[in-house]
This record gives sequence, C-alpha cells and structure tokens, in this order.
Amino acid sequence: MNSFGKLFRVSIFGESHGESVGIVVDGCPAGLSLTADDLLPDLERRKGGKQKGTTPRQEADFPFFKSGTFNDKTTGFPIAIFFENNNTRSEDYAKQRSIPRPGHADWVAHQKFGGHEDYRGGGHFSARLTTGLVAAGAIAKKLMSGVGIHAEVIEIGGEKDLEKGLQNAIDAKDSVGGLLECRVTGLPVGLGEPYFDSVESVLAQMMFAIPAVRGVEFGTGFAAAKMFGSQHNDAIDDMTGKTRTNHAGGVVGGISNGNELVFRIAIKPTSSTPKEQTSLNWDTEQQETFSIKGRHDLCVALRAPVIVEAATAIVLADLMLQEQQIKRIVS
Amino acid sequence: MNSFGKLFRVSIFGESHGESVGIVVDGCPAGLSLTADDLLPDLERRKGGKQKGTTPRQEADFPFFKSGTFNDKTTGFPIAIFFENNNTRSEDYAKQRSIPRPGHADWVAHQKFGGHEDYRGGGHFSARLTTGLVAAGAIAKKLMSGVGIHAEVIEIGGEKDLEKGLQNAIDAKDSVGGLLECRVTGLPVGLGEPYFDSVESVLAQMMFAIPAVRGVEFGTGFAAAKMFGSQHNDAIDDMTGKTRTNHAGGVVGGISNGNELVFRIAIKPTSSTPKEQTSLNWDTEQQETFSIKGRHDLCVALRAPVIVEAATAIVLADLMLQEQQIKRIVS
Amino acid sequence: MNSFGKLFRVSIFGESHGESVGIVVDGCPAGLSLTADDLLPDLERRKGGKQKGTTPRQEADFPFFKSGTFNDKTTGFPIAIFFENNNTRSEDYAKQRSIPRPGHADWVAHQKFGGHEDYRGGGHFSARLTTGLVAAGAIAKKLMSGVGIHAEVIEIGGEKDLEKGLQNAIDAKDSVGGLLECRVTGLPVGLGEPYFDSVESVLAQMMFAIPAVRGVEFGTGFAAAKMFGSQHNDAIDDMTGKTRTNHAGGVVGGISNGNELVFRIAIKPTSSTPKEQTSLNWDTEQQETFSIKGRHDLCVALRAPVIVEAATAIVLADLMLQEQQIKRIVS
Amino acid sequence: MNSFGKLFRVSIFGESHGESVGIVVDGCPAGLSLTADDLLPDLERRKGGKQKGTTPRQEADFPFFKSGTFNDKTTGFPIAIFFENNNTRSEDYAKQRSIPRPGHADWVAHQKFGGHEDYRGGGHFSARLTTGLVAAGAIAKKLMSGVGIHAEVIEIGGEKDLEKGLQNAIDAKDSVGGLLECRVTGLPVGLGEPYFDSVESVLAQMMFAIPAVRGVEFGTGFAAAKMFGSQHNDAIDDMTGKTRTNHAGGVVGGISNGNELVFRIAIKPTSSTPKEQTSLNWDTEQQETFSIKGRHDLCVALRAPVIVEAATAIVLADLMLQEQQIKRIVS
Repeated sequence: MNSFGKLFRVSIFGESHGESVGIVVDGCPAGLSLTADDLLPDLERRKGGKQKGTTPRQEADFPFFKSGTFNDKTTGFPIAIFFENNNTRSEDYAKQRSIPRPGHADWVAHQKFGGHEDYRGGGHFSARLTTGLVAAGAIAKKLMSGVGIHAEVIEIGGEKDLEKGLQNAIDAKDSVGGLLECRVTGLPVGLGEPYFDSVESVLAQMMFAIPAVRGVEFGTGFAAAKMFGSQHNDAIDDMTGKTRTNHAGGVVGGISNGNELVFRIAIKPTSSTPKEQTSLNWDTEQQETFSIKGRHDLCVALRAPVIVEAATAIVLADLMLQEQQIKRIVS
Repeated sequence: MNSFGKLFRVSIFGESHGESVGIVVDGCPAGLSLTADDLLPDLERRKGGKQKGTTPRQEADFPFFKSGTFNDKTTGFPIAIFFENNNTRSEDYAKQRSIPRPGHADWVAHQKFGGHEDYRGGGHFSARLTTGLVAAGAIAKKLMSGVGIHAEVIEIGGEKDLEKGLQNAIDAKDSVGGLLECRVTGLPVGLGEPYFDSVESVLAQMMFAIPAVRGVEFGTGFAAAKMFGSQHNDAIDDMTGKTRTNHAGGVVGGISNGNELVFRIAIKPTSSTPKEQTSLNWDTEQQETFSIKGRHDLCVALRAPVIVEAATAIVLADLMLQEQQIKRIVS
Repeated sequence: MNSFGKLFRVSIFGESHGESVGIVVDGCPAGLSLTADDLLPDLERRKGGKQKGTTPRQEADFPFFKSGTFNDKTTGFPIAIFFENNNTRSEDYAKQRSIPRPGHADWVAHQKFGGHEDYRGGGHFSARLTTGLVAAGAIAKKLMSGVGIHAEVIEIGGEKDLEKGLQNAIDAKDSVGGLLECRVTGLPVGLGEPYFDSVESVLAQMMFAIPAVRGVEFGTGFAAAKMFGSQHNDAIDDMTGKTRTNHAGGVVGGISNGNELVFRIAIKPTSSTPKEQTSLNWDTEQQETFSIKGRHDLCVALRAPVIVEAATAIVLADLMLQEQQIKRIVS
Repeated sequence: MNSFGKLFRVSIFGESHGESVGIVVDGCPAGLSLTADDLLPDLERRKGGKQKGTTPRQEADFPFFKSGTFNDKTTGFPIAIFFENNNTRSEDYAKQRSIPRPGHADWVAHQKFGGHEDYRGGGHFSARLTTGLVAAGAIAKKLMSGVGIHAEVIEIGGEKDLEKGLQNAIDAKDSVGGLLECRVTGLPVGLGEPYFDSVESVLAQMMFAIPAVRGVEFGTGFAAAKMFGSQHNDAIDDMTGKTRTNHAGGVVGGISNGNELVFRIAIKPTSSTPKEQTSLNWDTEQQETFSIKGRHDLCVALRAPVIVEAATAIVLADLMLQEQQIKRIVS
C-alpha cells in the first residue's frame, strides 16, 4: 500500500506522465499556518535542471492545496496536495517498451501488474512521486519547531570531492551513485519503541521507500561491525544524557537518546545511464543492444538531500505525535 | 507498538527476567501441521552457551503452545507461544541500577517510561525477546515451501576468518561486532510494492527491530554508491527474468524480481563488554568506573543468523499472503 | 484518521465549500476496466435536487481521475478521484457562525480543532464528502462480479408509505428521519473473522461513518432481543449452507454464511430543519432564536441508499481481497 | 485479525477448550498500578453460574500476568494475561460434530478453516474469549479516572421486568435474547473523528465483536428514524456544551460532545437452546432432530454488561490516548 505513518499519515499517488502526482497528509494538527509559500523552498531544492548532473525535465511543481487548509491554516483534516504533470515526453518510452530497462522496475511491474502498469516515464515508480513527499516533509518540519534536519551528499562515485566524482561520471558518459548523510538536532529523548517501531526501523522503512536507496546505517553503522564494545559504547556525560561519543547516532534500544541523530544512505547510480546496454527484448526474446532516451539525472543522489530530509521529517513528526511531543492543536 | 505484519502478524511480549517471553502469531493459514518439534531446531540454534563467545545463560526455551493449534495443526486462529524464564540472576542488575550502561537502553528506557521499566536483564529490550521471533519464523518457513532462507556470519571484528576475529576479542577481553549475510532462494516475482511497502522497506523495518543491528544493505548495497550505472545495472538474461549479475540483490523498484534475495546486516559489538568502563551514576551525578556483571555474549552476531532468518521468513510470509502466493487453507 | 480498509483502502478528503472533495482508492487490483462512465450512474443517484425532499444544491459531480488508470484500466496503483466544488454559497454560513447549529458538528468541531475547522457548509463533516465514497463504491462493485448490492429506504418518519412520511414532514415544515435496508446476494461463505473484524464489525464501522446514521442492525436485529432461541435459530437446509429462515441476516459468528446479507440503518432527521430553533450564541453566551439558511435535504435518508451501497461494496471488496476471493490482477 | 486499537491495542487468543484463553494489551502507559486484584471484581461479574439463567460452567478465571508489570506497576510494554481452561467437558461436543448447530459458527468455521478449527466448546468463537476483554477493560477503566462506565440489561425477551422475561424462557424451556444499555459519564469533548473513526464507528466495531450482538444504536437510535428534526435536535444550553435533551447520545458528527454517552445493544437469544431442533447432518446429508448438550447460558445478555463495559473502556482509552487526554506516563 502507498501510505505511511500512524498519527501523521501520508498517502501518495500519481504517475510520472499521468495527470498529476500528489499526496494526502492526514493527522496534521489544526492551526498550523500553511500556504504554498511554505512548501516552495524545499520543492525548488528538489527540482532537476538546477545543477550539473540532474535531469533537464522542468516542472513548475506548484503545490495546489485541494483540502485541509482554511484561512491559510491547517484545519486538522486531510491536506490533499496536487502537482500537475505538464512537461512530459512519453513517446521516448513507448518506443523501447519491449526492452525492460536494466535496473528499472519495468520487468517486475509488468509481471506484478499484468502489463496494466503505466510504463511512461516509470509511471508510479518514478522519483517524480517524491514531489509529494517533499511537500509533506515541509509540513512536518513546520510542526517540529526546534528540530533541525539537514541532509547532504558526502560522496559521489566514491569521491569525497563531489565535483570530481561527478566529473568522473561525465567523462565516462555514465551515471553514478552517491552517499548521503542526514543529521537531526533538537530531538527529545524517548521517541520510538524497542523492536518493530524503533527509530531505526521506521526511518529505514521510509528511507528504502525512496527510489534508488540501497543501504541505510545509523551512527557508526557498518563500521560498528568491525569494532570492539569498549570502542563503540557511548559513555553518558551528564544528566541530560549527552554522550561523549556518538557511535549510536542518537538511538539506543530503538529509542532516541537526545543526542544528534545521524544516519547515512547509499544511493545507487541512476539506472538510466547514457551508456549503451545489452538486455532482453521480451517481444523478440532476444538480447538487444540499446541506449536509453528520455531525460534523466546522471547522479540521482544530488537531488536526494531534500527528499531524505522530508522523509525524515515525516517519520519524526509521526513519532513525536505518538509520544505526545506535538500538540493536537498548534497555537 | 510491538506488532509487525499485515496478514501474517506477530506480537511479542515479555521481559528477560520476568515470568516469560512469548509471541502471538495471527493470520497463519489453517491446516499447517505444527508441533513444538517444528520449532525446536531453530530455537536450539538461537541458544547461547553452545559455542565460544555466546552467553552462558541457558534456558530450556521450550515453546508452550497456548492456542491456535488443534490435533497438531494450525486452526487459522492466533497461535500464542510461551517460553518460561527460569534461569535468571536478577541480583546482578539491581546492584548497578544507578549507572545506565553505555550502549544499553537503560537511560532512554528510564526517561521514556518514567522509571517503571523492568530493568532486570534489559527487560523488554533483551535479545531474549527474539526467542518468540525465532518460533514465529519457524512457522513462517513451514508456510513457504520451496523458499530457502540462509543467513550466516561473514565477518567478526572486520575479519573474514571468523575464528580469528573472535580470538582477537577474547584476547582483548572485549566484545566485538560482526557482519551477516542473508540469502533467499525460490521467491516468486512480484512481492512488495514501490515506496513504503517495498521489500527493502519492510525487511529493513524488521531487521532494525533486532537488537544491535546498525545497518542494512541490499545487493551491492553501500558499494553501489561508488559505482557507475553501467556497472551496477543487471541485464536480464531470459524470459524468466534471470539477470546476469545480481547487484540489485533480487529487488528492483521495491519488488522481488525472482533472482536470489541478498542483504547484509551490521551488528554492533555487544554493549556488555567485560572491559572496565566509565560513565555517569545518576544517583551521585558523578562519573564512575565499573565493569558489567551478568552473563553476556561476547559477539552477539554469532547468535544472530537464526534470528535474521526468522525475521526474514516472517516478512516474506506476510508479503506472500498479501500477494496471494500462500493459500488461506494449507492442504 | 480518514482512511478505511486493509487491502482495498479508501482515504477521503475535502470540504463542502473548499476547493474540492475526493478520495484515494489504494489496493484496487490491476486490469479492471474503469472510466468516469462507470461511476456516473451511482454519482447521479447520489445527487440532490432530483426528487422532492432533497437539497436544491446542484453540483456537476464529475469524477476527475488524477491517477491510477491507464488506457482506461486500473494500473494497480492508487486511484485519486476529484470532484470540484463550484456551486457553493458560503455566505449563508458565515452569518450564523456564532450559533452552533443543534444536531450539527459545529460545536464539537470548534472545540476539537480550536476554531481552525472550515465551518462553511459543514466543512469536512458535510455529506458532500460521501461523493468520494460513492465513486469508490462503484469501483468496488465492478470488482465483485456476481455480487448484488441493493439498498432502499423502507420507512420515512415511521411511515412505510414513503410518500406519506415525506408529506407529513413537508406539512410540518420540518425535516424527518428514515430507515434503510440493504441486501446483498452472491456473497461467498467465509468472509470476516470472529471478533474485531467480523462482517458486522467492519460493516458497522463503515455505516456509522455515514453522516446521520444512528443505528445498525443485522438480520432480525433489535427484534432478536425479544425472541426465544428456538425462534431465532436458522436451521441449515442443505449442503450449500442455505438456511430455512434468515434471522442471522447472512452472518454467523462474524462470518458470512452464504445466505443473503441483510442489515438496516436508522437515519436521523436532517439537523438543518427549516423550523425555528433556540440555542446558544457563543459570542453573546445567550440563547437565541434563529432559523437555518442554506440549502438542505428535508430527508437525508432519501439520498442514502446509493451511499450505503457504496459503503457496503467497499467493505466487501476489502473482505474478499483478504479472503483471496478477488484476484490481484483482473483478467 | 484478532487485534483492536491504535494506541491502546488488544490482541486476543485462545479457545474455549484449549490450553488457555488470554489477551495482550499493548500501548498501556507506564506507571499504572496494576495487580490481579484490580481485575478480579470485573472478572467475577463476568462468570457464569452466579445467577439464574447463566451457564453452570465454572472457571477460576484467575488472570496470570505473564509480562508488562513490574513491582505491581505497568512498565509501558505489552501486558500478556492468561486464563487457564480447566473445567472443560469436550466430549459433549465431539458427539454432535456432524450437525452444525443452528445459530452457531460451526458451519461457517468448517468452511472457512477447512475443518481445522477447534470445534470444542465453540473454539475461538466461544464467549469464553471475552474473559481477556474484561481483563483489558479493567485496565482501561483504571486509566480513565473520572470516567464512569455503566452497562445494564434493560429488557429480557421484550420484558422490562427482567425476572419475568427470564421466567418466560425458563417456562418455555428455551433460551432468550435481551437488550442492554450503556452509559458513560465524564468524557471530554473531542474524542473521535468524522467518518471512519467516529466514536460510533469504533464503538460499533467493538460491540459487534462481542458474540451474539445483533444491533447497536446511539442516543435515540432507531427511534430517530421516526422523528422530525425539531424533535431530535439537542439545543445547546451553556458554554460547557451541555444540551437540554440528549437524543444524540453524546456524539455529534462522530465526536464526543461532553454529554452522557448513551448506546444500546441487542443481544440475540443464546443459540444453544435446550429445545429440540432439526437441522442438517453433514455426514448423512439428512435433516436430523437433536438437542444440544453442554453447559450454556439461557440468556447470554445477563453476562454481557461487564463485557460491554470492558469493550467500551478499551475503545475510549484508545480514543483518549489518540486525543492526548491520557498521558504516556501515569503519575
């Protein structure tokens, strides 16, 4: 299903080349001042075509509020937000329909939905669906005053010099992967539960919902597997719970400990590489060499930070409502 | 909350040194032959004290079926399974109550539950709760004939020679982390959804529910962030969807593609290291040097494979029921 | 929250005098042929102004599909449907804002949402929201071939002659309540669960979601409370499970038994009576005599049958998916 | 599934003649003082054999806490409670296995679960499962200080003189139905949502989970269908929201309005009537005359008040947690 959250609940819909994409946000407290202007800065950050290595497809991405606000404040009822799809070039996709693109969902979608999926531009699988997430994330951020969420790309193609990592890909005429880090300050102690609703569990569920994410780690993460306990343990410094080190990344026993929340996300290279590829043509049942048309990001990681922030904010707003750290009526 | 799953749903309860731990499995199809014997092999694998580096605490871990079976078959109603706690030594814990153990949930639990949490042996946070998961996993495995799930430790303390990695920790008188890999064969195409219920999302949610897990990656995982698209893309080989490479680890667009499902899990070193530590005493509000008593695993990763398999099986059984790949009545 | 269903899941949004009302239907199998034409007949039935005793407010109620269909078939992804609000006269509502209308949600909404609710035309509480339900119901009906759902008004103002019951109200210049009966044929045996997900439980949850519903009874219903067991028990006639009588109304132990499903619904008189009323003015804190402006149904029960059918269809489609009686891909 | 609730969540399990019945209560705030003594009064009220017209089956019904309390207080983790089944006489049931009892779930269970259901004493369908509900309800009641919940039988077999209604049944050697009313005082304004999570929706879902319930109505209920709006509307009296009349039964627009919550429940006559019946024998495929053995209530409504109260308390505690009217840590 295409919904996430217990008390702050988002439901996404739409297809890349269909009428629209959008999101319904249910459970947002009443009284939060909210207009399109609040969403535009993050929506602008999400757009392609702004920097080298991102798709030239340009959409206005204006968030049409269809419900849930009145007099520029939230009413406490579901907020439906729409984005029109205008700038689509579907003919690029119809031509190569019979060759499921490697790394893309074409083949599994065809099997799972019996050929009824909207394949144009990746349909429902498209990263264009994250527009709604970014809008919902901006609302969630507004709800959590005092909480700071910042995500950034820290590596492209294995290079910490991001410019160089991207140039390597441009030179190789290939797409390339990247690494993101997200840091959250100002969280209260006590969010999350042990086991299935641990902070890591719900954040990871959400992060793997973002297209192209292949790994998630918290605090020291995979490096922790190589460490001794005496190295990894974070000793508590004072009665606020501040720890001397932060190998835990702000979560212990599934529960936020008040220190900075830190996690990293591995983004695979864009599946739509400009390079020639050879794969199956399901009409001819033969291997075929082809190259992908359409407009794509060379490094999809570059557009991910604002999406990761939004996804994080949605999760945290939900946890804070569950923990009664956000009031039902915002004053 | 302490439940997981949509149609195959598990609810865990219990505390390490309380009366019992256990699990309720709801949604298991009727007619599956099931007795304690079916659970014992995996429960045996989970036990400590069997191999070097695991806790000397020994529990009988006999699964008492309290409901849901009749004439040694499942009835279609909730299966409640209990494990008695007999072999507890709680006095080890009361003594050091005022020093929240670094890396443990003591401090966050105290804050979140106002001091009402059962702190003995880690209470509800204890890995002892995974006994129930292993039982439920054994049921899930029985439901999925033709599906093979295998998890194993592939690194201890950064060493691929597991013996050596463990010996390093023993020599250092310290606990140590490890890396696991899980592989699943025989899955149908089409499990999972794009976005929030992607195979990666639900598996990751579940994996991060296992105590000490700090990272999860699928297929090539974090290494994908360093790759070019032409390297990472898995070309489709034939009309079954078999791919030449498996960088995707069996999931594309959130949906299983019929290839082997592969993921890895980083396990931090056991927080209860035998080494001396210095941390806060919340009574005296002073730093204090102490060492942890109680019986603990030196390398908790060693006991994790059967837990990871069980957790994986629970997720997959749920996805297969959702996709109508398991019948409501097992014949 | 404003969602309903496990596998066939609807989420409603919108306000009576806002931009729009609508619904997102998630979990609809792929491959169902679906266009606006499939929804129009039921949407037409729902409209007011068609018969004596219903509101003169006229909306085009054209269902705009915003996602989830492609080439006039469902894709398996969320179907977002919108209805524009054009024919609103909000000024009727602003004037009497300070007198919470008796029988309406004005006062509770004001308390619960801190005055931020959209009060115009009842806002989110308006029966206009049922437009989306009717659309989703039409989809659910299409999914269940062989299942017939028929609801009708069987009493107005206590009169079985509906014309007379309505005329009594017109003569009295008052609004009036009514009784509905819904009958469903062609259901398989085995839908529903004992306890919380009983057929009665989920249908009743849904029916009480319809504005103005005050009672729900199954089969013989409240009359059963007056009967002896030997009168009420339905003896089984043959190996198909057909019963000689149907006091159970097609549900035993929470589970459909293959006989006709029968239930009745009490609808209160429209709260917006044309009669003068006296109630509190929260500005003056005095009692005030007033009469309600705006366009309203005299007998809201008259418009309820198609809504009750839709609501029933949504519930049953969900139960049938859970019981694997509807395939994930419609052929 | 066999769970109910969003934040205060109960999961029931067990069979009438199996090992045990029980319940897991998840989401109960930490710090509530709780021992078996708190549950015993309501459990005692639920027992049969105490009054004329109830089953002579006597169980100790002692609630064994298996988790979730520590030092006689709740910990904030799941509370698992067990009841042993000792006083079973299963041979009564095996004999007449081939004649599905009219009014019972025998036939539907057999179809739905393929014959694997535990048929002894009604198995999972037995009202014995309500023992767990009563235990959970007692916990919920303790959580809601200031809220008073009172249910009582107001009619037996159509007689307001309960003694007479019961005697009629005894004289007729038949079982008999009854009517209950439940009243709740002290509720805050603002519980519930319009539509699917309306107070009526969630209460009705829960009430229809109680075996033998056939109808639920709020406030004036079915009588409202016969009324004019001017008669039914409850005018607001003062700034507390108190209404002059209470036809709404304390709920308007799905939301509690602070007045007394009032609803009624129709209970059908016990299906196990002592009278001879004729129904199908599925072995012989012939009609057969038989009478039901086993120990049964003549009027199951007599035992229902404490169950209805418990069910109501569970629903309200969940709604109050959602509305942040109960704190996460009880002081």
